[in-house]
Amino acid sequence: METLASIGEFGLIRRIRHILQTEGVEGHGVIAGPGDDSAVFAPRPGYDLLVTCDAMVEGRHYLAGMMEPIHIGRRAMAMNISDIGAMGGWPRWALVSLGLVHDAPVEDVEAITRGFLKELNPLNAVVAGGNITKAAGGAFIDITLIGDVEAGRKVLRSGAGSGDAVLVTGFPGQAAAGLEILVHGQFRKSPEARPLVAAYRTPGHRAREGQAAAQTGRVHAMLDISDGFLGDLGHICEESRVGAEVMAQSLPVSESLGWVAEKWDRNPRDLVLEASDDYELILTCAPQHVEDLKRTVSRVAGASVTEVGRITPEAGRLEVVHADGSRSDATAKGWDHFARP
Amino acid sequence: METLASIGEFGLIRRIRHILQTEGVEGHGVIAGPGDDSAVFAPRPGYDLLVTCDAMVEGRHYLAGMMEPIHIGRRAMAMNISDIGAMGGWPRWALVSLGLVHDAPVEDVEAITRGFLKELNPLNAVVAGGNITKAAGGAFIDITLIGDVEAGRKVLRSGAGSGDAVLVTGFPGQAAAGLEILVHGQFRKSPEARPLVAAYRTPGHRAREGQAAAQTGRVHAMLDISDGFLGDLGHICEESRVGAEVMAQSLPVSESLGWVAEKWDRNPRDLVLEASDDYELILTCAPQHVEDLKRTVSRVAGASVTEVGRITPEAGRLEVVHADGSRSDATAKGWDHFARP
Repeated sequence: METLASIGEFGLIRRIRHILQTEGVEGHGVIAGPGDDSAVFAPRPGYDLLVTCDAMVEGRHYLAGMMEPIHIGRRAMAMNISDIGAMGGWPRWALVSLGLVHDAPVEDVEAITRGFLKELNPLNAVVAGGNITKAAGGAFIDITLIGDVEAGRKVLRSGAGSGDAVLVTGFPGQAAAGLEILVHGQFRKSPEARPLVAAYRTPGHRAREGQAAAQTGRVHAMLDISDGFLGDLGHICEESRVGAEVMAQSLPVSESLGWVAEKWDRNPRDLVLEASDDYELILTCAPQHVEDLKRTVSRVAGASVTEVGRITPEAGRLEVVHADGSRSDATAKGWDHFARP
Repeated sequence: METLASIGEFGLIRRIRHILQTEGVEGHGVIAGPGDDSAVFAPRPGYDLLVTCDAMVEGRHYLAGMMEPIHIGRRAMAMNISDIGAMGGWPRWALVSLGLVHDAPVEDVEAITRGFLKELNPLNAVVAGGNITKAAGGAFIDITLIGDVEAGRKVLRSGAGSGDAVLVTGFPGQAAAGLEILVHGQFRKSPEARPLVAAYRTPGHRAREGQAAAQTGRVHAMLDISDGFLGDLGHICEESRVGAEVMAQSLPVSESLGWVAEKWDRNPRDLVLEASDDYELILTCAPQHVEDLKRTVSRVAGASVTEVGRITPEAGRLEVVHADGSRSDATAKGWDHFARP
């Protein structure tokens, strides 16, 4: 079996470049790609640049035996694409830094590269540069993704205002449930669990939905969920210096999540709210624009969009409102899950 | 002692942001820095973007006990600054991805951050975003640095032409010698060895020299030395599809390198040529522009610039010409060092 040690760093770089050249798209504005000290791009006039970076570490963010290399590559790229989309931007140029152990199989690195392309090609975005390093312990994949957005169209976390409606796409909480199923093995073979495992293994992103939402000019704040619904709604509150209330009864619970919550004897709404990286979007807008925004976002690819709460004036006050009108403190410190039903 | 585990990821991010805000410069074109899904920048009209990334891994690129945290930060940033400078560009926005073990001391991370600023502040460049990850094994620092260059002024590796003169700044080979001294401990206390250890611990960069050289419009190819003089001259030959000959007698040997070569019973010119990351520049230009270019580059900060060889027509043929006119094959495969004197 060929490994990093047997073909060397430069041998591996050649193999990766070959895949990028033959299986990648051309991209926009690339003047010089991999092969020089720096990659060179021409930015589009009238656009601001968006830059994000996110790393996946073996043994922390993924277990080598639990995910196919192509899925590791897809996941690492999707989480970065999601960050650009959550600002309303277009992903364009990725730089990939790989930390590899010396006996890393070349075919795994090639599969990881194909995973990147699987996510980038449909968006006409490219891997334009990178770096290979020998890792001391666990391998890592660190991606910097550069995108752009029409100046004036970007959506920050800090724009939420009191009275805004809070919307969420899709069904958060599924990725964490999928990981739990993979780690513990129980229900792994159940067809009902499949969407949960898929949400963890091959998470989608809402970059196109984010772009469409930003284009309306009506979104006040937006981000993608990587720390769980409550954690990320908390980030919006922190940056916007507001609070929020979430209507428990409105939370979107997928069929699969409902199924597994029953098996685990847990409240499904807890699973929606707590830590999970689903890369769904949280958006806020004026109440009178909710229906319009829901239509615009769901038109992109049919994703459901659910109104789940309201921005409130008191900075940092995050509450869940239950069906009987009672309230739970839902700040990171106060949140201790719903009582068991 | 405060650690990553005791103050948490978000606690550490707050501490780093505080240092960036109070001790960093403002930078140009930063619309939104750390704190959102992506950082946002306004590119300068008429400029192309340069993007590079390079990682340092604990136990591979540095040993925690052997370098102060501030020097680790400086080195990690300087190597990226060097890559932008070697294209003729201006470093502007850095994204820093840290992989940290859970008991990483907060004060070390703060010192590493100050190391970044020590290199960025004089260039009016900023840390504009980043990411903290828990590392599984060795810690890592992965930096993506974005710069810009006037469209048409960038210098690639691929522009060298047969007949070009080959120039080099400063005294390559010192960093590798410094590392050897640090690892083996011998001569570590000798004042003669100090410049070598410094070349490894706190390498400079030639970004300003690279910019000045590119501005002349007379540099055909340029890169910074991170794989050793011969290795990197080989990269120019490969990308430009040319060869090169290096005049052994012309190679710049620093006083310290000459001293340690004698102690080690080695040919000092071997030490100049072989693997070492000194971040000096290799440039090629037409012979009639050599003197002018030397003056321009050395005027920036007094660095010596030495003409050491010539680009030749045969692709991939890399030779060292000795004082007696004999020639050694100096390609990666052929190179087996000078015979001992």
